Amino acid sequence: MERRKQNLELNVDALFQQIIAGSKNALSQGITLVESKKAEHQAMAQALIEKCLPHTGKSLRVGITGVPGVGKSTFIEAFGLHLVSEGHKPAVLAIDPSSGKTGGSILGDKTRMEELGKNENVFIRPSPTSDSLGGVARKTRESILLCEAAGFDYILIETVGVGQSETQVKSMCDFFLLLMLAGAGDELQGIKRGIMELADALMITKADSGNENNAIRAANEYRNALHLFPANDNLWQPYVGTSSSMEKRGMDRLLLVLKEFQEKYAANWIKENRLTQNLKWFEQSLAMGWENFLHRDHIAVEIETQKKLITAGKASAYMAAKRVLEVAFKN
Amino acid sequence: MERRKQNLELNVDALFQQIIAGSKNALSQGITLVESKKAEHQAMAQALIEKCLPHTGKSLRVGITGVPGVGKSTFIEAFGLHLVSEGHKPAVLAIDPSSGKTGGSILGDKTRMEELGKNENVFIRPSPTSDSLGGVARKTRESILLCEAAGFDYILIETVGVGQSETQVKSMCDFFLLLMLAGAGDELQGIKRGIMELADALMITKADSGNENNAIRAANEYRNALHLFPANDNLWQPYVGTSSSMEKRGMDRLLLVLKEFQEKYAANWIKENRLTQNLKWFEQSLAMGWENFLHRDHIAVEIETQKKLITAGKASAYMAAKRVLEVAFKN
Repeated sequence: MERRKQNLELNVDALFQQIIAGSKNALSQGITLVESKKAEHQAMAQALIEKCLPHTGKSLRVGITGVPGVGKSTFIEAFGLHLVSEGHKPAVLAIDPSSGKTGGSILGDKTRMEELGKNENVFIRPSPTSDSLGGVARKTRESILLCEAAGFDYILIETVGVGQSETQVKSMCDFFLLLMLAGAGDELQGIKRGIMELADALMITKADSGNENNAIRAANEYRNALHLFPANDNLWQPYVGTSSSMEKRGMDRLLLVLKEFQEKYAANWIKENRLTQNLKWFEQSLAMGWENFLHRDHIAVEIETQKKLITAGKASAYMAAKRVLEVAFKN
Repeated sequence: MERRKQNLELNVDALFQQIIAGSKNALSQGITLVESKKAEHQAMAQALIEKCLPHTGKSLRVGITGVPGVGKSTFIEAFGLHLVSEGHKPAVLAIDPSSGKTGGSILGDKTRMEELGKNENVFIRPSPTSDSLGGVARKTRESILLCEAAGFDYILIETVGVGQSETQVKSMCDFFLLLMLAGAGDELQGIKRGIMELADALMITKADSGNENNAIRAANEYRNALHLFPANDNLWQPYVGTSSSMEKRGMDRLLLVLKEFQEKYAANWIKENRLTQNLKWFEQSLAMGWENFLHRDHIAVEIETQKKLITAGKASAYMAAKRVLEVAFKN
């Protein structure tokens, strides 16, 4: 048993050394540990993450969302290749709350980012499947840390445009990018005002030759609309631009915007915001731990007993809860 | 110590006997125990409530709200006196989330319900002061039970019209009454659509001689507006009426409506709804217990330690939470 533990520690250390040396293979293995449900793997994953922590933080974490059909995959491919051409190392992760249901994953279809995926300076990881949104969120947060330790300097976190997942991505990124189509009304695109309020940049996609004017008009409209929104807490004025993934246009401008953001906020707002995000995640993890605790056998049994007493009119709700808490905390 | 415990039990039993015999004095003492922060009093209060449980439930619990100036106190006085004249025993309780701040209480000014307060078939209890809304809510729920055990058959739970407290009252009443002024727009009255959706009846107050037409017109408008609202889960069609507290008009109609509601739903919906409310209260109490637990010395210390590690970049949020949970549940 002791020997086994030592072996695991050796494995974690070896993996850690390879990850900070930039091995994509080791990074993949690390994320597999993070995604594993086995207690042994989880212990290794957490040990690995804490080893990596001093090597994390040196990236810009960019959340990317937009409704299906807006062209997220082709956009990320085009923008990722531009990042590489400028000497950067992008990593692409995904949050997909629907993956559990469909069994698939938004980045699962590897052919969708074929050219990007082949590049040696790029790391692409599909969304973990078969898990709750909360579980997916934890794994993505931890994967971000490992990617940073491996030297990736732009972490692109993709999500499908369906409400709850955007909030999750916002809670783990520095910069939030919303992709929009020209010519479709807000309602048509299913974009809620609340999502637009989260955006640090808004890109009109598919501004391909012939469609440029539509895109520019839409951009102007959104630019005007955004002026009516309350200011962000960091006073950043959201950027609105147009892009063509096919013709690789608009990517250079967006990168300049990201760099401006990074220069302006790296030393202050980004740092504070990440700390706030971490402390919130800490509290969410505590709350999840409590939820799990309530499902343990002896507590779950006591809860059922007390619920029956309440239903029979033999216990007040408050006293019933008090008795469960007494069992839980043995006081 | 053993003797002391016996004495407390004797006291609780004596109090219980007096309460179910209808003593307002004993009821007051019981509620004082409910409101006390002393552990000894709390234990007595909870023992008392559980003794009373089999004698509870035989009332209609009516929540009453409306913005300041709508005339809640005079309305409750007039309606309370009408209840008495019909042979009923009303109890008036209050939820006032602002009482903690002001040190006062919405029913504290006893002169506001002078005639009602003097009547021997009426019980009036001001809102408990200096407490959180959650604390006030618990005390009010428990006071309702004691009032019922003492034979009061209409429990009127008053609240100021400021959002959160309405939801609390809704979560402990069978029937929700919204008081409105004629002639003032919705915005003017600060009544949110969400509050109107909670209402089982809407009374236009101050329909005094000379102002009747205004009141009737307002009632018609609200009646039309309510038709556009989604149906209640019990399919009750909200009643809209007018009233004059000064001239004691509209009270008889409202009482007929309450009796119709009671006859229609006492055996089914009211019963189920109270059970749902109790189970929700049970879960809220569990959550509050967890919150309190996190403030205990050794847990609070561990939380601070872990927050510092997170801030220093030496712990991941998830692992930090895990370590707190290990201390909490000693596993």
